[in-house]
Amino acid sequence: MKLLSLETSAVAASCCVTDGNKILSQAAVNAGLTHSRTLMPMVEAVLSSADLTAADIEAVAVAVGPGSFTGIRIGVATAKGLAFPADLPCVAVSTLEAMAYRLSGLPLSGRVCAVMDARCKQVYTATFVIENGALTRETPDEAIAIDDLFARLKEADSPVYLIGDGAAMCYELGKDVLPQLTRLPAQLQMQDATGVAAVAARELAAGNTVKSEQLLPTYLRLPQAERELKAKQEAAK
Amino acid sequence: MKLLSLETSAVAASCCVTDGNKILSQAAVNAGLTHSRTLMPMVEAVLSSADLTAADIEAVAVAVGPGSFTGIRIGVATAKGLAFPADLPCVAVSTLEAMAYRLSGLPLSGRVCAVMDARCKQVYTATFVIENGALTRETPDEAIAIDDLFARLKEADSPVYLIGDGAAMCYELGKDVLPQLTRLPAQLQMQDATGVAAVAARELAAGNTVKSEQLLPTYLRLPQAERELKAKQEAAK
Repeated sequence: MKLLSLETSAVAASCCVTDGNKILSQAAVNAGLTHSRTLMPMVEAVLSSADLTAADIEAVAVAVGPGSFTGIRIGVATAKGLAFPADLPCVAVSTLEAMAYRLSGLPLSGRVCAVMDARCKQVYTATFVIENGALTRETPDEAIAIDDLFARLKEADSPVYLIGDGAAMCYELGKDVLPQLTRLPAQLQMQDATGVAAVAARELAAGNTVKSEQLLPTYLRLPQAERELKAKQEAAK
Repeated sequence: MKLLSLETSAVAASCCVTDGNKILSQAAVNAGLTHSRTLMPMVEAVLSSADLTAADIEAVAVAVGPGSFTGIRIGVATAKGLAFPADLPCVAVSTLEAMAYRLSGLPLSGRVCAVMDARCKQVYTATFVIENGALTRETPDEAIAIDDLFARLKEADSPVYLIGDGAAMCYELGKDVLPQLTRLPAQLQMQDATGVAAVAARELAAGNTVKSEQLLPTYLRLPQAERELKAKQEAAK
């Protein structure tokens, strides 16, 4: 089954076409341009370099968050647009789980901690146990204070592999108190559509799909504007 | 320095634009199409998705072999064509070293053995020592019998990470006699232009560049047609 996967939850954007576990074609960009400008030409290039058209795609997967609100909206809206005409089954993938699955199959054991900078001293995070490359989710996707994450990771008695665009920041903040923290090279640290495809392949096999109109962003918290409004309203009470 | 890197030494083809260690844009295809058809449109897409044109590129790197003779010729010819007009510095990268450098920075220790199926029970291979992600070359690029490679690897007292399009074959042939052999997931096993860029960044820093007309394929052995002619000539003596 030919699956198109999109990832736009942070500064980088990527897409790929897979068939089962085989990556037919992939592309990624991290040049500071807006996803609204780069994503669709990249999808077109990825399809055409594999000699495919949009009509050959049988399912669409997208990283639905958490992450950049605007980035996620662009990814989800694009996925909806591509899936709607032919009523293709869609898979909503956790951004954090997709990152962690980039390490799937690597000879590593310990924990994988996916982290994105959520600002305000918070991170979007989820932890997975990795045993010789096999991943099992340990905690749900959350927006929590970095200090709370560190307190939790203190218990870990094996390496904690940091992944995601908050990995470098967390490593710098925590390395002195948490010797378990382990860095990964830049080429594996960032989110990528191939991680979305890896999770989506499992979900497709289990029949966990939705219709395009049911695809929704997962922000985990209110947008900044709404948070500020709420705080103002609380203060005015 | 904006570097364009090309990899076409096997069935997959890939290219990327990097600036120092940062990957600005990358694309890869593994859909069974000829590189002569996919490579240039992919280069164009990779440039345009990073808002660049060929005029912005300051150096060109290419995997010069060993590998598929036709594949390498397409890569080297394309690199020459792109570098010649502005007389850009070029970097000739070993296909095997580029593969191994995809593992650079990963928390692995032992040996990395890059292998490509060279047919006739031979492999193109090179071995690197990896110590917590830092690579050092141990053997030169060679075309040797698989049995000779296995005899050599028997001495290894730590994991041997197989990488390259011959990795699955070598693992299947050797796993019963060589428990050191360790598989890597498909997403890291194949050659990719980002590995070419990683090696080229080091060579550029050391000033190891050539002019486009000096870029030459490294086949390591004669093409099949020439080997057969030679055998015939020997027999006729």
